[in-house]
Amino acid sequence: MSTDPTRLSRLPIVQAPMAGAGGPALAAAVTGAGGLGFLAAGYRSADALAADIAELRALIGAAPFGVNVFMPHHTATPAEQERLRRYARSLARAATRYGGTVGTPAPGAERDDWDAKLALLLAHPVPVVGFTFGLPDAAAIAALKAAGTLTVATVTSPAEARLAADLGVDALCVQGAEAGGHQGTFDNPDDPAPYGLLTLLALIAPETDLPLIAAGGIMTGRQIEAVRIAGASAAQLGTAFLRCPESVASAAHKAALADPAFEHSVLTRAFSGRWARGLRNGFVARHEAEVPGVYPYVHHLVSPIRKAAAERGEPDGLALWAGQGWRLARAEPAADVITRLVDEMAAARKAHA
Amino acid sequence: MSTDPTRLSRLPIVQAPMAGAGGPALAAAVTGAGGLGFLAAGYRSADALAADIAELRALIGAAPFGVNVFMPHHTATPAEQERLRRYARSLARAATRYGGTVGTPAPGAERDDWDAKLALLLAHPVPVVGFTFGLPDAAAIAALKAAGTLTVATVTSPAEARLAADLGVDALCVQGAEAGGHQGTFDNPDDPAPYGLLTLLALIAPETDLPLIAAGGIMTGRQIEAVRIAGASAAQLGTAFLRCPESVASAAHKAALADPAFEHSVLTRAFSGRWARGLRNGFVARHEAEVPGVYPYVHHLVSPIRKAAAERGEPDGLALWAGQGWRLARAEPAADVITRLVDEMAAARKAHA
Repeated sequence: MSTDPTRLSRLPIVQAPMAGAGGPALAAAVTGAGGLGFLAAGYRSADALAADIAELRALIGAAPFGVNVFMPHHTATPAEQERLRRYARSLARAATRYGGTVGTPAPGAERDDWDAKLALLLAHPVPVVGFTFGLPDAAAIAALKAAGTLTVATVTSPAEARLAADLGVDALCVQGAEAGGHQGTFDNPDDPAPYGLLTLLALIAPETDLPLIAAGGIMTGRQIEAVRIAGASAAQLGTAFLRCPESVASAAHKAALADPAFEHSVLTRAFSGRWARGLRNGFVARHEAEVPGVYPYVHHLVSPIRKAAAERGEPDGLALWAGQGWRLARAEPAADVITRLVDEMAAARKAHA
Repeated sequence: MSTDPTRLSRLPIVQAPMAGAGGPALAAAVTGAGGLGFLAAGYRSADALAADIAELRALIGAAPFGVNVFMPHHTATPAEQERLRRYARSLARAATRYGGTVGTPAPGAERDDWDAKLALLLAHPVPVVGFTFGLPDAAAIAALKAAGTLTVATVTSPAEARLAADLGVDALCVQGAEAGGHQGTFDNPDDPAPYGLLTLLALIAPETDLPLIAAGGIMTGRQIEAVRIAGASAAQLGTAFLRCPESVASAAHKAALADPAFEHSVLTRAFSGRWARGLRNGFVARHEAEVPGVYPYVHHLVSPIRKAAAERGEPDGLALWAGQGWRLARAEPAADVITRLVDEMAAARKAHA
């Protein structure tokens, strides 16, 4: 039996999990259209994840899907806590602006309910589990394998790819700097130097036989064929699905993706304390210079403010996650996105032959 | 007759001009092997360029080649001059470290001898002229066309691509963030948001029928086939040729490219006042926070220090230009690089068919 997660689906198209924008409806639509749907477990409790999985299974039966988990982080040091308190004071003004409040990280927030989620995924195995922000220990990988689950590690550099391959995961999700949302980088440097996707594939592909899932800015069938010829087995797309009716991104977020007033996407830590790509808006401009790189506490401080801004339809206060190709995202059902991608892939192969 | 500069050579391989590392020997080797060699006119006088062209023609006869010109900039404002003086005082310490001196920009340095170079290229036409850091006026384009020269504009965003296409250039060099050396961005923002190559191609290709030359991090034949399937007519490679014997990069620069101690490439303005990608070394670490974005004066301040560091074999004081794929650069003749690329291209097409 193949241990290649990109062989589980008919098409070489993987849906990016997108915490806060994906969900069972989108994953079901992508899997239903022949791709590999993914649920985002990040920022969700094990109980909420269990409910998502049940909902997805009710929609797709025995068809394949994946669950992406955020790896736990260290507890904030006293110095980091002081920097968080300063950021919280500054955020109070932003909260007032949108009628929200500054959040309070729950005790243990840095674990993101990892232990309970792993227990859930071992007790009720799913076809694929992906990891973001690092790697679990070898025992977790062995347990998932024994449960019949294929594992995928998100990597953003050749060094991370080597660590993941040495651990024995079944595939690598090779994420370029173009990607929307969080960079899956293992550490959290103040001065990141992320690789562009095509170069990252060129550096990693010769070093491993593992299947590679290429991620970052992919919006077209031409790009999917490009990453395949560059060594990937499949392409992962997130922003391409953000405006779909099945996406649970807020209406204000979806509208911003189609608004020509937004001109740049940038990597910022302003929303979570980790680098993530979104449209540059007022929140980013006001806060990116002062935000401490202390994940995930910053997310929990900011989260209620984002929610209040979304309810008011104020894109200026939202995390407008977007990959660099966001202008090509369309408001159409996920199945239509995939039909178009498949047509574009065929045309690209024909033109190149 | 075709106006597609990528049809002038047998292979879809263009050599990046690389001011300070390219030159007649490298351009001749690339053109001789079936690619399109390029001379860098940036930072050189019109007389020096004329000598380079004569030397190249003596080596390749009537075979095709290009000349890349840096576009002129505005004269530094009084406020910019004050910032330059401050930077010069800080650089004095760096100069001492390497036994060099801080340079003095010559009057008119911001023009980079543009008018004389344009006059030269009109009086003694060359097959291709490329532009970096913006666009000339319509009269210059018309005059070059009348002289039988094909023109290429370097662009780093869809907006720049539209401006270049509207001006009537014959091709676009689409440069991604992965590229080594200078980003050709028209303006010089304090907070750049450069696109990854594959996404940039996806955004620009549907908007124009102009031939696209893809640049940025390309080191392998697989990548060349990838950018072709993504819409490019040819690929431009610079770092892939940096360690060649025909490259005039300093010995210390060539050695640094093979030194595992260098772990990251970064975009920095420390060496010229414009964003350019090189290996992160001591000079970058010490100066990037203070450098004013006042091109090209910063280049002329720093240039003698770099020269002194090169003579001492001190990579810590050099501009170690490198694209993100630098670890794949090999110390072999340019013709061997091209033979390998062609083999890899054939293998990639075969594997993908």
